[in-house]
Amino acid sequence: MEQTIQPARGRLAVLMPGLGAVATTLIAGVVSVRRQLAEPVGSLTQMGRMPGTDGRPVRIAEAVPLAGLDQLVFGGWDIYPDNVYESARKAAVLEDAPLRAIRGELEQIRPMPAVFDPAFVPNLHGSHVKSGKNKAALARALMDDIAGFIAANGCERAVMVWCASTEVYTQASLVHQDIDAFEQGLEDDDPAIAPSMVYAYAAIRSGVPFLNGAPNLACDVPALVQLAERCRVPIGGKDFKTGQTLMKTILAPGLQARALGIRGWYSTNILGNRDGYVLDNPENFRTKEVSKLGVLDDILRPDLNPDLYGDMHHQVRINYYPPHGDNKESWDNIDIFGWLGYRMQIKINFLCRDSILAAPVALDLALLGDLASRAGMAGVQEWLSFYFKSPQVAGGARPEHDVFRQLARLHEVLRTIADRPPAAEDAAAGPVRVHAATT
Amino acid sequence: MEQTIQPARGRLAVLMPGLGAVATTLIAGVVSVRRQLAEPVGSLTQMGRMPGTDGRPVRIAEAVPLAGLDQLVFGGWDIYPDNVYESARKAAVLEDAPLRAIRGELEQIRPMPAVFDPAFVPNLHGSHVKSGKNKAALARALMDDIAGFIAANGCERAVMVWCASTEVYTQASLVHQDIDAFEQGLEDDDPAIAPSMVYAYAAIRSGVPFLNGAPNLACDVPALVQLAERCRVPIGGKDFKTGQTLMKTILAPGLQARALGIRGWYSTNILGNRDGYVLDNPENFRTKEVSKLGVLDDILRPDLNPDLYGDMHHQVRINYYPPHGDNKESWDNIDIFGWLGYRMQIKINFLCRDSILAAPVALDLALLGDLASRAGMAGVQEWLSFYFKSPQVAGGARPEHDVFRQLARLHEVLRTIADRPPAAEDAAAGPVRVHAATT
Amino acid sequence: MEQTIQPARGRLAVLMPGLGAVATTLIAGVVSVRRQLAEPVGSLTQMGRMPGTDGRPVRIAEAVPLAGLDQLVFGGWDIYPDNVYESARKAAVLEDAPLRAIRGELEQIRPMPAVFDPAFVPNLHGSHVKSGKNKAALARALMDDIAGFIAANGCERAVMVWCASTEVYTQASLVHQDIDAFEQGLEDDDPAIAPSMVYAYAAIRSGVPFLNGAPNLACDVPALVQLAERCRVPIGGKDFKTGQTLMKTILAPGLQARALGIRGWYSTNILGNRDGYVLDNPENFRTKEVSKLGVLDDILRPDLNPDLYGDMHHQVRINYYPPHGDNKESWDNIDIFGWLGYRMQIKINFLCRDSILAAPVALDLALLGDLASRAGMAGVQEWLSFYFKSPQVAGGARPEHDVFRQLARLHEVLRTIADRPPAAEDAAAGPVRVHAATT
Amino acid sequence: MEQTIQPARGRLAVLMPGLGAVATTLIAGVVSVRRQLAEPVGSLTQMGRMPGTDGRPVRIAEAVPLAGLDQLVFGGWDIYPDNVYESARKAAVLEDAPLRAIRGELEQIRPMPAVFDPAFVPNLHGSHVKSGKNKAALARALMDDIAGFIAANGCERAVMVWCASTEVYTQASLVHQDIDAFEQGLEDDDPAIAPSMVYAYAAIRSGVPFLNGAPNLACDVPALVQLAERCRVPIGGKDFKTGQTLMKTILAPGLQARALGIRGWYSTNILGNRDGYVLDNPENFRTKEVSKLGVLDDILRPDLNPDLYGDMHHQVRINYYPPHGDNKESWDNIDIFGWLGYRMQIKINFLCRDSILAAPVALDLALLGDLASRAGMAGVQEWLSFYFKSPQVAGGARPEHDVFRQLARLHEVLRTIADRPPAAEDAAAGPVRVHAATT
Repeated sequence: MEQTIQPARGRLAVLMPGLGAVATTLIAGVVSVRRQLAEPVGSLTQMGRMPGTDGRPVRIAEAVPLAGLDQLVFGGWDIYPDNVYESARKAAVLEDAPLRAIRGELEQIRPMPAVFDPAFVPNLHGSHVKSGKNKAALARALMDDIAGFIAANGCERAVMVWCASTEVYTQASLVHQDIDAFEQGLEDDDPAIAPSMVYAYAAIRSGVPFLNGAPNLACDVPALVQLAERCRVPIGGKDFKTGQTLMKTILAPGLQARALGIRGWYSTNILGNRDGYVLDNPENFRTKEVSKLGVLDDILRPDLNPDLYGDMHHQVRINYYPPHGDNKESWDNIDIFGWLGYRMQIKINFLCRDSILAAPVALDLALLGDLASRAGMAGVQEWLSFYFKSPQVAGGARPEHDVFRQLARLHEVLRTIADRPPAAEDAAAGPVRVHAATT
Repeated sequence: MEQTIQPARGRLAVLMPGLGAVATTLIAGVVSVRRQLAEPVGSLTQMGRMPGTDGRPVRIAEAVPLAGLDQLVFGGWDIYPDNVYESARKAAVLEDAPLRAIRGELEQIRPMPAVFDPAFVPNLHGSHVKSGKNKAALARALMDDIAGFIAANGCERAVMVWCASTEVYTQASLVHQDIDAFEQGLEDDDPAIAPSMVYAYAAIRSGVPFLNGAPNLACDVPALVQLAERCRVPIGGKDFKTGQTLMKTILAPGLQARALGIRGWYSTNILGNRDGYVLDNPENFRTKEVSKLGVLDDILRPDLNPDLYGDMHHQVRINYYPPHGDNKESWDNIDIFGWLGYRMQIKINFLCRDSILAAPVALDLALLGDLASRAGMAGVQEWLSFYFKSPQVAGGARPEHDVFRQLARLHEVLRTIADRPPAAEDAAAGPVRVHAATT
Repeated sequence: MEQTIQPARGRLAVLMPGLGAVATTLIAGVVSVRRQLAEPVGSLTQMGRMPGTDGRPVRIAEAVPLAGLDQLVFGGWDIYPDNVYESARKAAVLEDAPLRAIRGELEQIRPMPAVFDPAFVPNLHGSHVKSGKNKAALARALMDDIAGFIAANGCERAVMVWCASTEVYTQASLVHQDIDAFEQGLEDDDPAIAPSMVYAYAAIRSGVPFLNGAPNLACDVPALVQLAERCRVPIGGKDFKTGQTLMKTILAPGLQARALGIRGWYSTNILGNRDGYVLDNPENFRTKEVSKLGVLDDILRPDLNPDLYGDMHHQVRINYYPPHGDNKESWDNIDIFGWLGYRMQIKINFLCRDSILAAPVALDLALLGDLASRAGMAGVQEWLSFYFKSPQVAGGARPEHDVFRQLARLHEVLRTIADRPPAAEDAAAGPVRVHAATT
Repeated sequence: MEQTIQPARGRLAVLMPGLGAVATTLIAGVVSVRRQLAEPVGSLTQMGRMPGTDGRPVRIAEAVPLAGLDQLVFGGWDIYPDNVYESARKAAVLEDAPLRAIRGELEQIRPMPAVFDPAFVPNLHGSHVKSGKNKAALARALMDDIAGFIAANGCERAVMVWCASTEVYTQASLVHQDIDAFEQGLEDDDPAIAPSMVYAYAAIRSGVPFLNGAPNLACDVPALVQLAERCRVPIGGKDFKTGQTLMKTILAPGLQARALGIRGWYSTNILGNRDGYVLDNPENFRTKEVSKLGVLDDILRPDLNPDLYGDMHHQVRINYYPPHGDNKESWDNIDIFGWLGYRMQIKINFLCRDSILAAPVALDLALLGDLASRAGMAGVQEWLSFYFKSPQVAGGARPEHDVFRQLARLHEVLRTIADRPPAAEDAAAGPVRVHAATT
């Protein structure tokens, strides 16, 4: 029955393609928080509030039945065989001392071999990859991995969050138009089917919510949207909204609120992590650029406000700059104009940390994707737009980029979920114990 | 009847204490816009939209019955005798060529002698000032000015917007507690009654809405709030929200939306106009500092979110720096923290123009203050908080600083006004012609 | 006799390939300075000092016999037929009012048709170009232009300064190795001979010093160096050192002076003038990039200081960003390290004006090139490195990039010139009158 | 004999008033370098080069006979009793792990009780202080400390570097005019004699070179200059040149080199260490402000260049901002003008670390002060200006602030020292062993 919501009973498997900087920062963080060594700052589900029934703020975690951090079991796939401790050390996001404090637990999490196609990420060369006679076989292998992980770790449910690299730019073609064509494409090893689509397919077919943290299409094609609706699985994407784009979707609504015009917005980024290295390839950058460029037009609506935004020049650049590692830094120059057209300038320099901003987003998406699933919500979850640079929407709707409207929408949906009665629990639900994942 | 709204018939006198940089930029701008030489960018009433009855955006100017720019007649008071053209040249906000194009019309607007007390603005020394046996006499002189201006210019109504300097820091004392004490204080020449209060008193007594663009108290004392309610006059303040604080009230809600913590926010400003010179006096700066410091706590609520904002160090500095003239520039350093407490930094450098941002705010306040008056709304107009750094609120309420919530509230009130039936117009309302002010 | 120096008698023709932003800013500026409407700020020859014989600073213009601004006659070539007033208006570097004040004089200066090859500047399409049966014929046409200009304007001497666009990246090949091969290449229309080389050849053959303000090779090939030495003509290049690179060659020696290490230097630029549009083509950008990248290694010597500079990542980006026009803006992030390897960062945001910085450099090079010629100095003038991003040096020497050493070298050479006795003047040298150029 | 130089035989005591952030960073760094755990970056004596006799760069440490790091024994005075390990932990400049690695050695260095007067540093309150009947007695106690430390640690020589807080602003008065008046003032407990002067006096009287890392006068009064000359002791000051001022003395000569004008230079700083806390007191800030404001005029010479620098507005601000700790950060806005007076702007944001920049300066000054002493150089050592914000000069000379001229002068003096013959060594000079200091 749709009005009820299933309780967050038992363990939840959080499965991530890509156990790199973001995933290991997420895992190490959750482990640290469980041990009360640190705080899950940046996570709405853990630290944030929403308006309660009386309008006063209440903790989100108290208002809706989320899985607790103690119930999560982490796993994933990677093209390198490093365990999570080794991978976190190489990613160099977290300092050595806090990582060493939880080394044992991290070392037990080892990636499953990945589905990988170098045509989609030319700058990477991994050895820890699956082989199969065609993409259908690879999808089946992933479904076996999912089922195996759930069984081995005693999980009740799973959720998949794409934390791997950005793939080269692709547009949806015929093979993506419906589920039959897609499944035929898997059998035919169609080159237009990206690895991220194989993962999304495997997740949906397994009844596992799929959330996409990168800008590549993955589940954002008609075939997989259909499949998600048919299988009653929530999906969402694309591209974690973190540093520069987060700032942009905060600031642009503010300038618009005051009817200030914009003549130009130049954005550059420097970063030196694996993500930056992958984006050093023009075809992969193209995917990211498209994701980053869309936000302003959707917020400012030059069509409705041609005097203010009709002649706006928006440019985004990303540079691979090794000295910064994961410390992604952005610099924006914004040329605005006010009363009588007089010009002013805003410069924003954001010294951010890419994975520190992304990890709590990945956590929230895992927990909210699982919540949506238990609430019986299927298909594209537009109310999760708050977390995405390039929100996937259903059926030709216009995406919402204004972070404040996105938040209002998130609160609104959480409010309706909070107001639902819980489903009757079966008596057998015992206490849950936490174990390291066994892959 | 309260449900109707009076039409914006005839001329509206816009009277400004202080015909300096902001007021002359406003006047020159409106004249230029009337002649189709420029656009009123930054003014919501002229360029902005609000949600229509069907939720789709409509122009504010079309939704509610505002006075048109052609109906405005400008006048004011100043401690220097310069006419508006001369004053605008000295302020050096607008370029020479566009000013010369409208020189004749600007030269006809001459300030009336000001009520001034050097104890409240030690850095200024003006000669064009009123004398009177006590503050009550000065207030009466202002009321005569108002009545005279309206009569001489054939106006139907007037509105007053304080555009003069920031006064020294003052706190409300006994003489400000009720209207009898206040009026006795005027007779006694009480030193705690600031010139801005004399203007506010004169306006309210004359039935003229009073909006306060500076951070000094002016109408923000119990006596004048009482008087405004009794006289059925709308009032509002304090301190036009322009550059740095505008940015702060845009950005802080965005950081809070993502549950990011803040450890420090350092804000510095450099400006070289008369405002900067006045604020070079520590007592006047104190007034501005209090106004600028309040915003973060009200938005972030460290009381509710001690983990994120409980240990936040907020500092604001203003420096008088002549090379920049009116080109106020701010630099903010924001120390934030995210996942597991890891630190990040945001630096914002805003090369703004103080009066270019303030002029459309003053225009909107004049038009909306007049609208409120015609709609029968009296006392503190909290819904105009959108325009103020330090919103005046009624009866101990908490001010709203989040610019997006302020905008939502503004839209909401405009919506209810838009939905009211107009009052029956009397038949005699003839066409309105625009003349230069005659003072 | 080499020890004497010819006096700066009569008029000096200043001939510029490219009458665009830089050249028109130079011409308009000199005209304004002659009329005492403005000051030649940024020009060492006009405003700067050098150590006198007693070590105390003396004005350069008083120490060495430079041509005076009143003696200069400007002319040039362009691919568009606009006169200097029209071209200056389009370049939009200078404000309208000061340009209008000297409009008459600027309108009289009209470009001669240019030698142009779209293969070297794919983004430009000009119609005001010469045709000829081969590059030799084009070179002869330029020599005729030079001789004709000198005669028509009653000039004693001429100097040529390349102010046109950056050409696509080219490396010296066989045809550039000696003068015979080069002249054969002109006859054969060899595609490796760029237009800038044709200009340089024509200048040198005409006995006219050639200074190259762009990063393309022009006279920086063995054939033309030989020719310059044989013809006793001074030459110099490459690429006016203006905004970001000027800052870099100031700052890098300072960091090195304190033995601070550098791990990365990221430089980005945004500009919207024609130069930016040309550099939007990757092949033209390559030429500029090579010019801009060289400076750090030559200053910091990672070979000698591997601990400090051995692992430095230097990156330069240029973006065509129309909203900024000629207001080129740079942003640099410099990652340095100090005591025990601890990291620090420097960010530099330079809101500069490209042509405002370049015009006085072009002026100084014209005057100093002429001085060198009168002093009998031939071939590559390394002492002018102070003015160039990528100094042309003779015979495999290492270029000097440190701006302070460059300045010391400039002063040293000027000192030796100042100490020479003047040549005996012939009696007939009459007073010089200034006329507009007649092309 | 002055032409020879004494060898750097035996141990050198490095005695520092103030064992806070700078001193502990210096000590911990030298210990780490000795153990090959880190590199002494930022120290010219350890990492830098000078021109050799043939003009090719040679390592300074190889060209002149400096004491080696293994020969240094550290000690000092502080108003808090913390040992160097505890003090370094509180200063929080260095990370925990590298400090723990050398904990034992640091814990053995304990401060001697300080000479302290709260009138000179109102914001600090220390308990570990000397008492004495008057300042003469305190001076004698310091001399006893020096002699005792040298004896206890088997040192051959000592050098003193002031690393304590900035004292309140003081100007030289009668008591400072000659050594008799000064010594009488010590007996009379004259309030104009600051603690830093008592230390300087004690050092000079003990034959120990004194170098002043803060902006207070200390040895910069006629009485102590006389004494230093009479006792043949080298002295130098004032105020370690580190972050913002270092940048200023790099950049200003560069702008001047190009004859670019400057209309304004606004400098702000935020820092949260003890130095910042002391400077939060206006009287202490005044001392620092005077030190920081002088540099531009001395470099740019507005008297000689009134057109370029005659109307320059220079402003320096320092703000105590706890979130940054020792990570001092500066932001500079520089308003320059070029050709025809057109305006441009430079913004510099330096995220520096105060003590990381200061520690190698303190090291170099200790080693070079000792070298000067062995070379028989007495009185004010102007050639060490390179290291100081506000160089102390002898007899009314003009200080040199240009960092490149300062470096040239440093190299020149080192060159003459390098060219001197060594003094004959006495045969007994055995090998030196390193011990922890015994206080």
